[in-house]
Amino acid sequence: MHVVAIVGAGRIGAIHARNAALNPRLRLAYVIDPSAEAAGKLAAAHDAETATLDSALSDPALKGVIVASSTDTHLEVALKAVKAGKSVFCEKPIDLSIEKVSSCAEAFADANFFLGFNRRFDPNFRALWTRLRAGEVGALETVHIISHDPAPPPLSYIDVSGGLFRDMTIHDFDMARWITGEDIVEVYAAGECLVDKEIAKHGDIDTAKIILKTEMGRIVFISNTRRSGYGYDQRIEAFGSKGRLAAENMRETTVESWTGGGCQTNPPMHFFLERYANAYVNEMEHFADILDGSAEPTISYIDGLKAQAISEAALASVRHNKPVSV
Amino acid sequence: MHVVAIVGAGRIGAIHARNAALNPRLRLAYVIDPSAEAAGKLAAAHDAETATLDSALSDPALKGVIVASSTDTHLEVALKAVKAGKSVFCEKPIDLSIEKVSSCAEAFADANFFLGFNRRFDPNFRALWTRLRAGEVGALETVHIISHDPAPPPLSYIDVSGGLFRDMTIHDFDMARWITGEDIVEVYAAGECLVDKEIAKHGDIDTAKIILKTEMGRIVFISNTRRSGYGYDQRIEAFGSKGRLAAENMRETTVESWTGGGCQTNPPMHFFLERYANAYVNEMEHFADILDGSAEPTISYIDGLKAQAISEAALASVRHNKPVSV
Amino acid sequence: MHVVAIVGAGRIGAIHARNAALNPRLRLAYVIDPSAEAAGKLAAAHDAETATLDSALSDPALKGVIVASSTDTHLEVALKAVKAGKSVFCEKPIDLSIEKVSSCAEAFADANFFLGFNRRFDPNFRALWTRLRAGEVGALETVHIISHDPAPPPLSYIDVSGGLFRDMTIHDFDMARWITGEDIVEVYAAGECLVDKEIAKHGDIDTAKIILKTEMGRIVFISNTRRSGYGYDQRIEAFGSKGRLAAENMRETTVESWTGGGCQTNPPMHFFLERYANAYVNEMEHFADILDGSAEPTISYIDGLKAQAISEAALASVRHNKPVSV
Amino acid sequence: MHVVAIVGAGRIGAIHARNAALNPRLRLAYVIDPSAEAAGKLAAAHDAETATLDSALSDPALKGVIVASSTDTHLEVALKAVKAGKSVFCEKPIDLSIEKVSSCAEAFADANFFLGFNRRFDPNFRALWTRLRAGEVGALETVHIISHDPAPPPLSYIDVSGGLFRDMTIHDFDMARWITGEDIVEVYAAGECLVDKEIAKHGDIDTAKIILKTEMGRIVFISNTRRSGYGYDQRIEAFGSKGRLAAENMRETTVESWTGGGCQTNPPMHFFLERYANAYVNEMEHFADILDGSAEPTISYIDGLKAQAISEAALASVRHNKPVSV
Repeated sequence: MHVVAIVGAGRIGAIHARNAALNPRLRLAYVIDPSAEAAGKLAAAHDAETATLDSALSDPALKGVIVASSTDTHLEVALKAVKAGKSVFCEKPIDLSIEKVSSCAEAFADANFFLGFNRRFDPNFRALWTRLRAGEVGALETVHIISHDPAPPPLSYIDVSGGLFRDMTIHDFDMARWITGEDIVEVYAAGECLVDKEIAKHGDIDTAKIILKTEMGRIVFISNTRRSGYGYDQRIEAFGSKGRLAAENMRETTVESWTGGGCQTNPPMHFFLERYANAYVNEMEHFADILDGSAEPTISYIDGLKAQAISEAALASVRHNKPVSV
Repeated sequence: MHVVAIVGAGRIGAIHARNAALNPRLRLAYVIDPSAEAAGKLAAAHDAETATLDSALSDPALKGVIVASSTDTHLEVALKAVKAGKSVFCEKPIDLSIEKVSSCAEAFADANFFLGFNRRFDPNFRALWTRLRAGEVGALETVHIISHDPAPPPLSYIDVSGGLFRDMTIHDFDMARWITGEDIVEVYAAGECLVDKEIAKHGDIDTAKIILKTEMGRIVFISNTRRSGYGYDQRIEAFGSKGRLAAENMRETTVESWTGGGCQTNPPMHFFLERYANAYVNEMEHFADILDGSAEPTISYIDGLKAQAISEAALASVRHNKPVSV
Repeated sequence: MHVVAIVGAGRIGAIHARNAALNPRLRLAYVIDPSAEAAGKLAAAHDAETATLDSALSDPALKGVIVASSTDTHLEVALKAVKAGKSVFCEKPIDLSIEKVSSCAEAFADANFFLGFNRRFDPNFRALWTRLRAGEVGALETVHIISHDPAPPPLSYIDVSGGLFRDMTIHDFDMARWITGEDIVEVYAAGECLVDKEIAKHGDIDTAKIILKTEMGRIVFISNTRRSGYGYDQRIEAFGSKGRLAAENMRETTVESWTGGGCQTNPPMHFFLERYANAYVNEMEHFADILDGSAEPTISYIDGLKAQAISEAALASVRHNKPVSV
Repeated sequence: MHVVAIVGAGRIGAIHARNAALNPRLRLAYVIDPSAEAAGKLAAAHDAETATLDSALSDPALKGVIVASSTDTHLEVALKAVKAGKSVFCEKPIDLSIEKVSSCAEAFADANFFLGFNRRFDPNFRALWTRLRAGEVGALETVHIISHDPAPPPLSYIDVSGGLFRDMTIHDFDMARWITGEDIVEVYAAGECLVDKEIAKHGDIDTAKIILKTEMGRIVFISNTRRSGYGYDQRIEAFGSKGRLAAENMRETTVESWTGGGCQTNPPMHFFLERYANAYVNEMEHFADILDGSAEPTISYIDGLKAQAISEAALASVRHNKPVSV
């Protein structure tokens, strides 16, 4: 079993800690968090110890570090870990600043570094991706990505998130690259504040419709809103020369209720912890594969940079109301 | 164009009159009904004349008679019409008495007589029937027929209907024969009064689950209730050696509403006039084919008698609580 | 009954002629077409006479004219008819030239003139429109319109169609205005030739993704392709503050086939004659209402001009690769 | 954490061992199996030890025993465990002989004994059960249970299974009792050999349609086949006075493929290990609750006996072709 440490004992840290603990190839040894209480609780739940980052990194048995701390610490933690020779599984983004990440390119390029874009590991999107490549609907032409949050985050989060494109659409930009297998060359984004005017006062938009063009002339459409009113709407449609592949939403149960008013199913699963529960498990499997040496990281810091570059272009597109090259 | 007359200007008569009038191969010439007002109104709507049955039958131009009068007159009207040498499209049943119908067997056997089991002409059931015969799911083994009315008829109707099996399940018995392509040899029926105890006081049941066996050992299940609470539930599932073919309900629109409470579609179409609107049109097409001489009637008085015989067996099964041979 | 004439005995003319003939409030008296054979055949099918436009217009009993001739004759025919004091139901577009139509504005403004954007009469879209206005999903924010043809038209048609936006997207532009209840102020269109490179050689595109902005800041997305590979994909999703209303595709039957390979339903209905059969019937009902005087035309020549203006803006957007004001 | 042992290291034993190991409230200490190799492998996978039943039972720290050994050993193992004062989670059936189980009634009645009818813990069926009791579709009237296996077991299994009713339908009989909340008073079963005539030679049937009546006059229909041809079909429909609640099948992904041939989704999940994966997890949760003392066992040996009694009645019904009292 590969010994791993987790940095960050918050919501997403707890998910990764649990998945690491449940993975038969991994042993979660250390939990690192500035809050002793949070670290202690999470460590206790999984028979791990609390530690400081430095002490953990100094353990030669430690093979892998999972970076799930607050966003502004990802870069520092990840750098320390790769420099200590550890394999790293880092939550996205490495840093909100493209420049900062780029300046560390060499360190990440040489390392066993895996950036956690979780949606690539969702079984539905993965099946779509695989079947698309198997030619089931012919040559890919265009893609639609629907990515609607159930409800807006608190305004305090808006202030630090970097805005809709950097915080939320970043996932969809990565999906666009992954599904098409191409780089994005141009972005046109229409952004509005239709959900809550307070969000505009905090300098952000809450609704966006985005058109991306790829190197080969394929077109990707992305739809975002901070508030769907009906749950977490996460769908992808891929249109090919012979048909359409679509990954529909997941629902909590398969129960239908038929009454005089109509036939009702469950809404889409509420939010990402439920919707992407399997994706997080599969991510950890991939990290175990990396530690085994049976797989290279399939998502690198460059993928993170490219998604961020599209975000910046989208932001510029809204500001100047024109298509912007990436 | 073939000249036709309609006997009966009630609800189902109006449907058939309209479909005859709209059929480019038919000309509706006469409307016959004891109520001069009803006959006059329906005739006016379709540029036809009112008439008595005798006067209409004496018109040598008249080729076909559509019998849609009250059930207790079907036999007399149909007999007169076939004896006058007219082709007949008769609503089911010819008569509630099997004996009476049997005693006229010769007259119907020699005639161009078509019994209107409308469901055989529903495009969904027809597609299932055709694909089943094309071997899409291998050899047929068993069939489920769900046939639930939206709401019970008035108690006054219960009194004259002949009861659930003769009035409602009769359609399902015919579907069982049509889908399997076999005769039914045994019936077990569980009947209860679960919807409205008043129905029991009027000597009927309102809920039934029925198991039929065919000559070849196939099994058909039928579910009936007088009140679904969610519309007119009309489904058929056919299970074969390689899979399942199912005809699902029809809905008024394809609109879905997704809100916090879930995802809702329209309920099944409310009742038979809507659900089987196309079936009635297709029935009339078949009658036009018969008048053209391009088709033999696909449903004969014998099919009516056989469905009635299953009804009687079902009734006996409930009374004696045991399987009954047909 | 209101006496009407149809100009044009081609494919869409035949549809309208049949619906007029079947409408109990209309009497189809005249069929007008340069081809005596086509006119004669259609007239015979509906007990009508062939005529010239002038002779038909000179009949004082004639109340309404249905213009379903070739596109380049719409304007002339419609003008003659309105000048003769007839009510007019005109297929879209009145003319491919916005200028020509504008120059006749006065004539159309004073007339009982109804422009046939058939999709507004589709029962599914109509139900979505009605339920949206009833507030079922709160305040409307954004709309997605998927409008994919099953297969490209012949290249000869591409040459005369005016191109994708004027020929195909024009319907979607009208839907955008109708669903939002607002005028469009800006268009960004990404257009590519992904289906067949020959189409590019004929000066057209075959794939488009379009973002529209309304006066109030709502956003509409339109997706077009000339070839879906899976039938005629006609869907609308409306996103509101409380949820989502979606009109899904129609299918020929409700039959499902479950086999080892999965669970399969019918593809979307193949093309517009099937998909919008009910819309054409409902359009004719509206024309009968107009002739009755019980309704004003709900779609005017101005609606036609506005949809055309959006088409022109979309074309300019593709050419200059930037958003264009309407 | 409660210390538990598992008896049986086969397929279902491995499932329960894993779920026990993953449950934060349980510690899997012992794996017991006649095959040292199987026991050793399973123990190693979960940091447990191999043991004999007697040595494990003699450990005073051991609180719970999971009985997942071969069916013919359930009774002996379970009896030993309850006599040793351990809580027991026993796979169904306790024994194929109703008499044998009945003769041990006292031992089980006094014990903390939980019989594992896994389907009661399926989230879909559980949601249906809960919503039914909340009155969502009014008063329950009838229930349909579709329970079709993907493919028949080997003939060697047919010989020892006790036959379709005892081996397969037993689950559906328990569901019938659980969904209705009532005891079954009468059974009519139609059983045939339609899938493979070899099964008949081995004395069994492979297809059954069964009608159950409850004390209160409710009716339950069960459909069984050993081979669906399209996966593991596990559906329940509950019909109430105000509507219908249905638990539909689960599918591996939500991906749809739309091509010229139609729109295809995944088939139902293949078999019970996949379909009921969550049910097995939830069962183990319930066992943990029992060990905590926070819950009484919700399924007792009496539930097992009652389901078995219905099986026997069904068998008699097929033999004598008549309804049989339970």
